Amino acid sequence: MVNSHPEWKDKQPYKSIIEGDKNYLINDYINNHGKELMKLVVTTHSGMTLDKFNTDVQEFMSSSMHPKYNKKYSETVYQPMLELLEYLRDNEFTTYICSGGGNDFMRVFAEDVYGIVPENVIGSFAMNSFEQVDGSWNIVKQSDNLFMNDGVTKPAAIAHRIGRIPIFVAGNVRSGGDIGQLTYSMTNELPNFQLLINHDDEVREFSYSEKDNASINAANEGKWNVVSMKNDWLTIFPFK
Amino acid sequence: MVNSHPEWKDKQPYKSIIEGDKNYLINDYINNHGKELMKLVVTTHSGMTLDKFNTDVQEFMSSSMHPKYNKKYSETVYQPMLELLEYLRDNEFTTYICSGGGNDFMRVFAEDVYGIVPENVIGSFAMNSFEQVDGSWNIVKQSDNLFMNDGVTKPAAIAHRIGRIPIFVAGNVRSGGDIGQLTYSMTNELPNFQLLINHDDEVREFSYSEKDNASINAANEGKWNVVSMKNDWLTIFPFK
Repeated sequence: MVNSHPEWKDKQPYKSIIEGDKNYLINDYINNHGKELMKLVVTTHSGMTLDKFNTDVQEFMSSSMHPKYNKKYSETVYQPMLELLEYLRDNEFTTYICSGGGNDFMRVFAEDVYGIVPENVIGSFAMNSFEQVDGSWNIVKQSDNLFMNDGVTKPAAIAHRIGRIPIFVAGNVRSGGDIGQLTYSMTNELPNFQLLINHDDEVREFSYSEKDNASINAANEGKWNVVSMKNDWLTIFPFK
Repeated sequence: MVNSHPEWKDKQPYKSIIEGDKNYLINDYINNHGKELMKLVVTTHSGMTLDKFNTDVQEFMSSSMHPKYNKKYSETVYQPMLELLEYLRDNEFTTYICSGGGNDFMRVFAEDVYGIVPENVIGSFAMNSFEQVDGSWNIVKQSDNLFMNDGVTKPAAIAHRIGRIPIFVAGNVRSGGDIGQLTYSMTNELPNFQLLINHDDEVREFSYSEKDNASINAANEGKWNVVSMKNDWLTIFPFK
């Protein structure tokens, strides 16, 4: 798309892609909730039919490898979390994923990878359109009024999509992005449970903490259950 | 709210309420998909907690009567459609409602009245917020980027909420507002079924047709099943 947008040469986040500046996007992901990265995503997907998008995602998922583990992305999932999802479903819970990832993107693999059906995938989104493309009706991806599913907007998305307050929420330490939905589950009048995964295993995964320690502080205050990946998880990934 | 908005005296749709001009809103509902009516709804509800809103809807539903039948609105539902919903669920269908009504509004009674759970209610919406009100966290109703669920936007809302194409859609003749979702179900690769309810019973309900006859024309073209309320329905309402 760069050819028809010469102004992108000097405009972020496009500039970073043209110049191969990975650090710009890594910094955006870590310190800015990936908001600039998401702009790239919606700009490049807008106007594409959902069918074409789904095919592209499938191709990406079956051909791309995680640079650290040299495994497909669909394999770099946490084995204990897969077991937890299964355990919950076996006990009559309905399981959802509520993530900053694109709603349409995650739906392509969420059922295979997490056992979560499309209607239970809650992600960032723009409302798509329904229109005729080459004579047949299609859902076409759009980018207007992009809703970023992160932080305090996650409870809003859960309220919008489910219309009930969850009684069990698990989140990650990363950018404080799960504090909102963990807090939301505490407003349920029924008994409720909060689980926070701390990424502290530099050998088997990554070790990092938030600059402001916000998620751990919120966990201490709310008496949430904090899991240390290093000390509490025997296995991290389904592969060895 | 009129006291703090003196400019509404000369501004529609607010002017119609101040002047008691029912015809303005009836005309908007019939000929303009109720878009002005919806503006009133979102303006008056914006800033209210979802809990307070739900309580208000419950009170409205238990105290207001339909002017023609002198029955609660929750009773003025179509008996054959209730039976159809039950029949579908008995045969392993998941049933949804996809309507121009407010998402939050319909959820208050959809389970009791239609047997449709909150997460399966698809209506007009604005993304609400999650914020502290008087020291406790709440979902608060908002009005930005209002999504009107009508016509070609219904398939977009179905794609957004469910992420699958329906194989069975039932709609009404009124303003062509269900042509979109009926058409969408035809794009499913699986066998699919379209049902259009024609309101032609002036004695037991209402008799009207669309100015442009768009829904009936689309039904003929798409070979949809058209139900005549007058000739095909033995019973209209659960009450006598």
